[in-house]
Amino acid sequence: MEIYFLGTNAGVPTLQRNVTSVALRLLEERRTFWMFDCGEGTQHQVLRSPLRLGKLEKLFITHLHGDHLFGLPGLISSRGYQGGTSPLTVYGPPGLKAYLDISLSVSQSRIPYKLEIVEHSGGLIFEDETFKVEAGLLEHRIDSYGYRVTEKDSPGNLNTELLKSYGLKPGPLYGRLKKGEDITTDEGVLIRAAEVIHAPKRGRIVVILGDTRPCAGSLPLAQDADLIIHEATFAHELAEMAHQYHHSTARQAAELARDAGGAELLLTHFSSRYTSQEELAPLLKEAQEIFPNTLLAEEFCTFPVYRRTPGNDPGE
Amino acid sequence: MEIYFLGTNAGVPTLQRNVTSVALRLLEERRTFWMFDCGEGTQHQVLRSPLRLGKLEKLFITHLHGDHLFGLPGLISSRGYQGGTSPLTVYGPPGLKAYLDISLSVSQSRIPYKLEIVEHSGGLIFEDETFKVEAGLLEHRIDSYGYRVTEKDSPGNLNTELLKSYGLKPGPLYGRLKKGEDITTDEGVLIRAAEVIHAPKRGRIVVILGDTRPCAGSLPLAQDADLIIHEATFAHELAEMAHQYHHSTARQAAELARDAGGAELLLTHFSSRYTSQEELAPLLKEAQEIFPNTLLAEEFCTFPVYRRTPGNDPGE
Repeated sequence: MEIYFLGTNAGVPTLQRNVTSVALRLLEERRTFWMFDCGEGTQHQVLRSPLRLGKLEKLFITHLHGDHLFGLPGLISSRGYQGGTSPLTVYGPPGLKAYLDISLSVSQSRIPYKLEIVEHSGGLIFEDETFKVEAGLLEHRIDSYGYRVTEKDSPGNLNTELLKSYGLKPGPLYGRLKKGEDITTDEGVLIRAAEVIHAPKRGRIVVILGDTRPCAGSLPLAQDADLIIHEATFAHELAEMAHQYHHSTARQAAELARDAGGAELLLTHFSSRYTSQEELAPLLKEAQEIFPNTLLAEEFCTFPVYRRTPGNDPGE
Repeated sequence: MEIYFLGTNAGVPTLQRNVTSVALRLLEERRTFWMFDCGEGTQHQVLRSPLRLGKLEKLFITHLHGDHLFGLPGLISSRGYQGGTSPLTVYGPPGLKAYLDISLSVSQSRIPYKLEIVEHSGGLIFEDETFKVEAGLLEHRIDSYGYRVTEKDSPGNLNTELLKSYGLKPGPLYGRLKKGEDITTDEGVLIRAAEVIHAPKRGRIVVILGDTRPCAGSLPLAQDADLIIHEATFAHELAEMAHQYHHSTARQAAELARDAGGAELLLTHFSSRYTSQEELAPLLKEAQEIFPNTLLAEEFCTFPVYRRTPGNDPGE
């Protein structure tokens, strides 16, 4: 599970950064990746990345502002050209379907795979055996959502060292133990499954918030997350401007991460006024003063999503 | 009057070339530029060019396929951010308005200038004192148009050498002569305007064709043009594929330029299979065998539009 930023700028593309898009790579978990937002030129960024559109499984739009949306029809069309045949589901606020329907129909785009468009107004929007995704409303100039991606706990592995000490070698009995069945070996030894199975592996929680002012909706979404991705359009010296434009400062993002008991914070969606990582350094500094485990997003860079352990978990 | 290519690839963006857009720079003529087609990422290309969106006056869409269209909402939105306040008119086939209306409304884009959208089905679509633009239907999978841009002839300049030989110095009499009025000097010499005004300067004709098979509609549009921009998706060895996909080969583009008595031909809209200028060399060669004055379009390069003179005019 890794985060890969395709676009980290607010509002318009610049020579340094593209408009918003971020990928959640789930190669080990699902052999796919998911995408959050799709500003214009996202498919161009994908060309320069290790991602392949054929592997894209789900695409979540936080809100319908152009810098998060206008790359969507082109990416959907090009996915077919690039050999994408597996289904793709796009989630987003109401209005998404009308926009995509007309974009793909006037252009007579041929989509050679199953495309599903799911409009939602928050709540549980996806769940299967290994993941669930919930959406919650934030506070922006138009309806903007945050997505909370929860990886489900996975059953613990067998303690193979212990089993070997019982003289039990890999075979069908291992499978029965793993299913939770107690067994008796040929030598008449009772082995209880509960004794030889490690504790379940806790799933990770990744929260990707759309554009927002600090608001009540952020906290429940971000609670106890392993990773929070939050906009930081401005440094806190421009807090008034941030409020006026319905955005957040880096410090405000850090306050949310702290209050939510998050483990790690990635800042993104920077105003065009900051033209380099050096000019963004004050944003990082003011955030780290509140929430030390903060990093700045950077395009074409990979950020692993770490699993909390009791040792590094601020929530335990 | 110059041509500046922003995108020269067919169908999808590649690492080498972007999808279609071409600018007609009219700095001397109107202090503006016009644009023909606006594939996704065109605004990104503009950032890397000497063009400024605030100077964009008219935008013509040849047809509504995504690779010619999907950059339009983003470019229209960003033009405002970049200080564009002058009116912008967008011309294109029916469907354009519905697409733009919904794109700009779901995204709640704020356009701080007068935006006019003109749907047309060919014919004369614009005319003022210095230019006219006509559109004609071509033959493609969906309605695709070519645009014929005609610069009007401009009145000849005064022959100042001759006037000096008459002893007449620059002043109000020059203005009256320029308006066509015969005058008499203080010394009683009659000077006829017709004698001292150079011949009118012939306007140039630039023809930009959308995606098309060879078809009857191309010839009247391209007749006697000073510059023709024509798609050349494939080399002629793939003529069958070109026909199947409603495209042209380089040789077919050259045949049109030759038959139309054009002065110069620029080939563009190349299939992604050609990944370099070297791989495009056979397209140039096969076109030049039919029409020697052919060049390959190249992104971020300027191609001046030359005025025909009797010496270099194949039509005279």
